[in-house]
Amino acid sequence: MNPRADTGFGLGNLPYGVDDSGHVVVAFGDEVIDLASAQGLDVGPKVWTSGSLNAFMALGPDAWAHTRSQLQSVAPQQPARARRPRSEVRLVLPWEIGDYTDFYASREHAEAMGRLLRPGEDPLPAAWLHLPMGYHGRAGTVVVSGSSVPRPSGLLPGPTGPVFGPTARLDVEVELGFVVGTTVPRGRPLPARAADSHIFGVVLVNDWSARDIQSFEYRPLGPFLGKSFATSVSPWVVPLAAVDPWRVEGPVQTPEPAEYLKTGEPRGLDVKLSLAVNGTVISTVSSGGLYWSMAQQLAHLTVNGAGLRAGDLFASGTISGALAGSEGSLMERSREGSWLADGDTVTISGWCGDRARGPWISLGEVVGDVVPGL
Amino acid sequence: MNPRADTGFGLGNLPYGVDDSGHVVVAFGDEVIDLASAQGLDVGPKVWTSGSLNAFMALGPDAWAHTRSQLQSVAPQQPARARRPRSEVRLVLPWEIGDYTDFYASREHAEAMGRLLRPGEDPLPAAWLHLPMGYHGRAGTVVVSGSSVPRPSGLLPGPTGPVFGPTARLDVEVELGFVVGTTVPRGRPLPARAADSHIFGVVLVNDWSARDIQSFEYRPLGPFLGKSFATSVSPWVVPLAAVDPWRVEGPVQTPEPAEYLKTGEPRGLDVKLSLAVNGTVISTVSSGGLYWSMAQQLAHLTVNGAGLRAGDLFASGTISGALAGSEGSLMERSREGSWLADGDTVTISGWCGDRARGPWISLGEVVGDVVPGL
Repeated sequence: MNPRADTGFGLGNLPYGVDDSGHVVVAFGDEVIDLASAQGLDVGPKVWTSGSLNAFMALGPDAWAHTRSQLQSVAPQQPARARRPRSEVRLVLPWEIGDYTDFYASREHAEAMGRLLRPGEDPLPAAWLHLPMGYHGRAGTVVVSGSSVPRPSGLLPGPTGPVFGPTARLDVEVELGFVVGTTVPRGRPLPARAADSHIFGVVLVNDWSARDIQSFEYRPLGPFLGKSFATSVSPWVVPLAAVDPWRVEGPVQTPEPAEYLKTGEPRGLDVKLSLAVNGTVISTVSSGGLYWSMAQQLAHLTVNGAGLRAGDLFASGTISGALAGSEGSLMERSREGSWLADGDTVTISGWCGDRARGPWISLGEVVGDVVPGL
Repeated sequence: MNPRADTGFGLGNLPYGVDDSGHVVVAFGDEVIDLASAQGLDVGPKVWTSGSLNAFMALGPDAWAHTRSQLQSVAPQQPARARRPRSEVRLVLPWEIGDYTDFYASREHAEAMGRLLRPGEDPLPAAWLHLPMGYHGRAGTVVVSGSSVPRPSGLLPGPTGPVFGPTARLDVEVELGFVVGTTVPRGRPLPARAADSHIFGVVLVNDWSARDIQSFEYRPLGPFLGKSFATSVSPWVVPLAAVDPWRVEGPVQTPEPAEYLKTGEPRGLDVKLSLAVNGTVISTVSSGGLYWSMAQQLAHLTVNGAGLRAGDLFASGTISGALAGSEGSLMERSREGSWLADGDTVTISGWCGDRARGPWISLGEVVGDVVPGL
């Protein structure tokens, strides 16, 4: 039996967050367990009061597995002083982000964007089927769920040249992210087959985008101010072990990837994501269809000798499906677009499994309100 | 009189570094002053033994100016225990880098690259004259001068499709960087006229580039693995106040920039940079010709509401002049290129003023050896 599994936060989940006093907390049912006060853990309170998950990540994968196993035993028996209602806890950004890289791993999204942005050309960029394309985002503007997003201003395309003003095309991107838990020095490429052990956990990501700023600036250096004003992440980091039961085979890869990108199956992860604006779900999609897996993203990023830091954030890029109702951004829903207005609330929710009948786990949600710019 | 000014490290310079024991040191003549042992400073040893310049930066611009003024008084009278020969000191990366953004601020370089990469098109990207184009680089692979650079591997363009292997087109980029010294919260755009006060100091940057990896990957998301394997910086952070006497007027900007990018003159900074391979200088250029200034880069990056962290690194992008012998990269020297070989040593040196007759200050150098990849 798995107590509280019906909430999505049973013993199969046990995600980590950090509260506003800097304590590491674990979601369990409708409560959180404050690990600084918890009983039955070998890892001591110093790690749980450091203000971020980085101290725990630094202990390494064996400690993550051991602590998870202990929590699965002792979570139901915690004393009252270690427990609080989940609804009363204010969660902060739970880890210190090193570098943030955003990929472009959904074929359906890349093709849709190519058709919109480069009509008449092959919708997929030439390199897209050969490697997981990506770019570096701004780590310093990653914010936790609940943070407001002021409407950004910038130079926008106008009829006779660029015009400065607030974006008129504010969009969202539904993404699945993961947090690197280990440091990998420069010059140690990780083959895709061995990369998963470096993943600490997964988060939901909303990569807010100003499409007019982006379209004016992006050639040839890629996305910059159209993205860098804010990227929101969910407050719960769900251990990779918790989502591992929902592995699925990824799409067949043709042409065959280079050796460093080869990986076993099932390489995909079937996380369902829903996108709601002002409480109305407008899109639902699964990350199981992503062409390039998390391990392939890690292998690609390190193949040139780049190192990793514990806390590096990888995001999938917008996840879209092939069918209407599975678009991961507003831009893909209609050519004219129906963009975000000031006051809108955007909620991305994530889960694995069957919410109605179980088993399932929740990845929680990442929420953001659009507010007027300054 | 300015003692030791002939070395480039007189009282007008006094750049900050960090030694391998984590102490902040200041270059003065052929020596360094260990600030943890120095006499006559109001800022105490805790700040000078923290392993990076970030603790000092956190004290703010008034403390930077006050400490600089005190150092200019007391540097010549330091006791022997606070002094060491500069040649015996091992310097480490002197600050913790938040985000690293690389711009494209040299018109001569942008036009040269456009002609090489997009022959037949307008060499300047459409947005180039309207805003300082840039992209985010990988902060975690910024290394200090003296670090070896293993030749990166990746997918390279081949006659019948991409081929995996070590880059055959390893290049350098001669750049001037600056370090942000203050934290600016999200949603507080800095107009260009007010941005300089947020700059702590300047460094030399070598943004190593693998041109074949870059050319295969860069459309449409911009530079990624072709750059992310290593970026080298000089070990001395030269205070903005030290280079300020070498302000120069920048190129006329037509069309007129948007209001947030407008700035007074002289907006440029006349830092001379030389590029040497295996001890032979092959190029010399000045940053005084950069089209977009440091203050304009800061204004642009923050205009969308993005915040800054103390320690953020901005780099100019490759600095090239209009004449032969002033190219900031090997790619621009000849269409066929003459790329770096394993064992090559690349040295970028920087200075302000007239080295032969003075006055002048040195920005030191950023050195890197190319070694075979793994």
